[in-house]
Amino acid sequence: ARTHRIAVIPGDGIGKETTPEGLRVLDAAARRFGFELKLTEYDWSCETYLKTGKMMPDDGLDQLKDSDSVFLGAVGWPGVPDHTSLWGLLIPIRRGFDQYVSLRPCKLLPGVKTPLANREPHEIDFYVVRENTEGEYSSVGGRMFPGTDREFVSQQSILTRTGTDRIIKYAFELAMTRPRKKVTSATKSNGITFTMPYWDERFAEMAKNYPEVTTDQFHIDILCAHFVQHPDWFDVVVGSNLFGDILSDLGPAVAGSIGVAASANINPEKAFPSMFEPVHGSAPDIAGKWIANPIGQIWSGAMMLEHLGEAQAARAITDSIEKLLAEGGPRTRDLGGQAGTVDVGKAIAEAV
Amino acid sequence: ARTHRIAVIPGDGIGKETTPEGLRVLDAAARRFGFELKLTEYDWSCETYLKTGKMMPDDGLDQLKDSDSVFLGAVGWPGVPDHTSLWGLLIPIRRGFDQYVSLRPCKLLPGVKTPLANREPHEIDFYVVRENTEGEYSSVGGRMFPGTDREFVSQQSILTRTGTDRIIKYAFELAMTRPRKKVTSATKSNGITFTMPYWDERFAEMAKNYPEVTTDQFHIDILCAHFVQHPDWFDVVVGSNLFGDILSDLGPAVAGSIGVAASANINPEKAFPSMFEPVHGSAPDIAGKWIANPIGQIWSGAMMLEHLGEAQAARAITDSIEKLLAEGGPRTRDLGGQAGTVDVGKAIAEAV
Ligand SMILES: CC(C)[C@H](C(=O)O)[C@@H](O)C(=O)O
Ligand SMILES: CC(C)[C@H](C(=O)O)[C@@H](O)C(=O)O
Repeated sequence: ARTHRIAVIPGDGIGKETTPEGLRVLDAAARRFGFELKLTEYDWSCETYLKTGKMMPDDGLDQLKDSDSVFLGAVGWPGVPDHTSLWGLLIPIRRGFDQYVSLRPCKLLPGVKTPLANREPHEIDFYVVRENTEGEYSSVGGRMFPGTDREFVSQQSILTRTGTDRIIKYAFELAMTRPRKKVTSATKSNGITFTMPYWDERFAEMAKNYPEVTTDQFHIDILCAHFVQHPDWFDVVVGSNLFGDILSDLGPAVAGSIGVAASANINPEKAFPSMFEPVHGSAPDIAGKWIANPIGQIWSGAMMLEHLGEAQAARAITDSIEKLLAEGGPRTRDLGGQAGTVDVGKAIAEAV
Repeated sequence: ARTHRIAVIPGDGIGKETTPEGLRVLDAAARRFGFELKLTEYDWSCETYLKTGKMMPDDGLDQLKDSDSVFLGAVGWPGVPDHTSLWGLLIPIRRGFDQYVSLRPCKLLPGVKTPLANREPHEIDFYVVRENTEGEYSSVGGRMFPGTDREFVSQQSILTRTGTDRIIKYAFELAMTRPRKKVTSATKSNGITFTMPYWDERFAEMAKNYPEVTTDQFHIDILCAHFVQHPDWFDVVVGSNLFGDILSDLGPAVAGSIGVAASANINPEKAFPSMFEPVHGSAPDIAGKWIANPIGQIWSGAMMLEHLGEAQAARAITDSIEKLLAEGGPRTRDLGGQAGTVDVGKAIAEAV
């Protein structure tokens, strides 16, 4: 049987509650479609940090690097500053494994209520492709004249040709697999005048290679407005690290619930393992109550199977999610129901 | 009679169509409330640029500096790159006159359809306070290794103590004048780890001076999602130049129409003239058809009168706008009507 080695990092908060449900569904898919998942679980988290002073061991990436994929819950907990938790675990994996594509589907699922008026499921169905290694999230910066009136901080945003071209190319390749074949570029070249005009230049250059693909571009401010007013305009939207981050929270929000949103951190060349995680965070406010929506996690599992070449199994999972929602199966509070995390996981696993 | 000297810059595209309507309403207000407006019109625009090679004369700021306010339409036209048009006119005025507050009301007006489901006018009523001189829109950056595979561009985001403190303070002062007394800070300190933690630090410091004000903060990604899902949460939202820019387009979008959105670029100390302009741009796609919505421009005029100490007149204008919309008066296409720019301007002027 085909075997896939999966490193599992439940992390913090509701990550510990949604990850088991993700695994439950993956397990059901493996049994049905005849492959094996070899799981190795890692307890790396803020809890570990509070005991050991490290979010992950020094050789953390080494421990993960022979797995085929990483399946992550959520990272972050009150009392541990974000720059410790996220920059000690999540970001080093994204960057260390050169997972330069963050891919996030934004899809209005049947049976899910969108905050928008009069929108039908087929009208919201697009991908946000986010650059995941450079841009505005840089490690170049500092503070001058601390504690004085002249104090200032500065941080560079950096776009390399390699980093920019490969993410834009990924977006075009993705568009080529979709019926509408359209790519929208998120820019802000009218205000951010060194980096963003370069983004536009590389986008225009790449577009030349894809004459079949329709393109457009919007400044990030009006693009966010369009997400709300015309979500039906979009097919594949590509943006820098920060712009992609913003759009991939806003997209799921207009599509109804961040609790169902999935994401993939991909190294397309498979030189390193890719990582799959829900868009939501560790949600300290509802952690421990077992009411978190596991669908984002489960859907991330489907994206993982797709990446591992198990397209049929991936499809079975997303179909089961859609069926459960459309047919009024158990749903968590964020979707207007009363079900617990485990109920939803079990129902989807059964359907698979 | 009290006299206010106004520099009028219609600029490009629909700016040329909405500015006269703004002036029509201002004139009506002046007659009713007994003050005088001394107008000086400047034809600075992309058209001027194409003739003279300059968006404004070298001594442009000098020409404006003795006016009490600048009343601007819109800047930008296809064929003239944004970095020429905006950075040759709009941005130099904002910065040269140290208009460090960009203030943008987001209000669902009665009779305006929001794209959100089931939202009533009183549920969306907040201000975005945007830092308007530094941050992500910096002039420090460049390109290295041009034309090679090693090519990269970089741009610094810079937050000074002066710049950060004064904008946050303005937000708190504004909140103190409002019944809810709440300030929300837009951050991204979990990803942008040099500048944004500093923003958080200064926000927390300033909050200590305003024990009556409730505060919260969200990362910009989830904050954008909350604008869509919970616009009723917000009272005064303060953000950096880029974050404020994004939120002040998204806010008006959830409140129904960017065509009605107004903005003020303020130097609170009145050391220099402030500038008032609609949020929308020059809209080349509808320019020349006289169908643009003039309400954003007219409302900006009301903000200008407020700043000039004519609070009663300002109130008369905003009341007239609300009445026109609530009572089904003439409306432009973006609001589902068939009226032209001039019809709407005349109706509001009459009501005033
Ligand atoms: C035109 C552009 C530079 C400007 C900005 O981003 O400041 C505009 O979007 C605005 O919000 O006034
Ligand atoms: C936690 C944070 C650093 C992260 C990001 O901005 O990348 C998160 O918002 C995400 O989108 O995965």
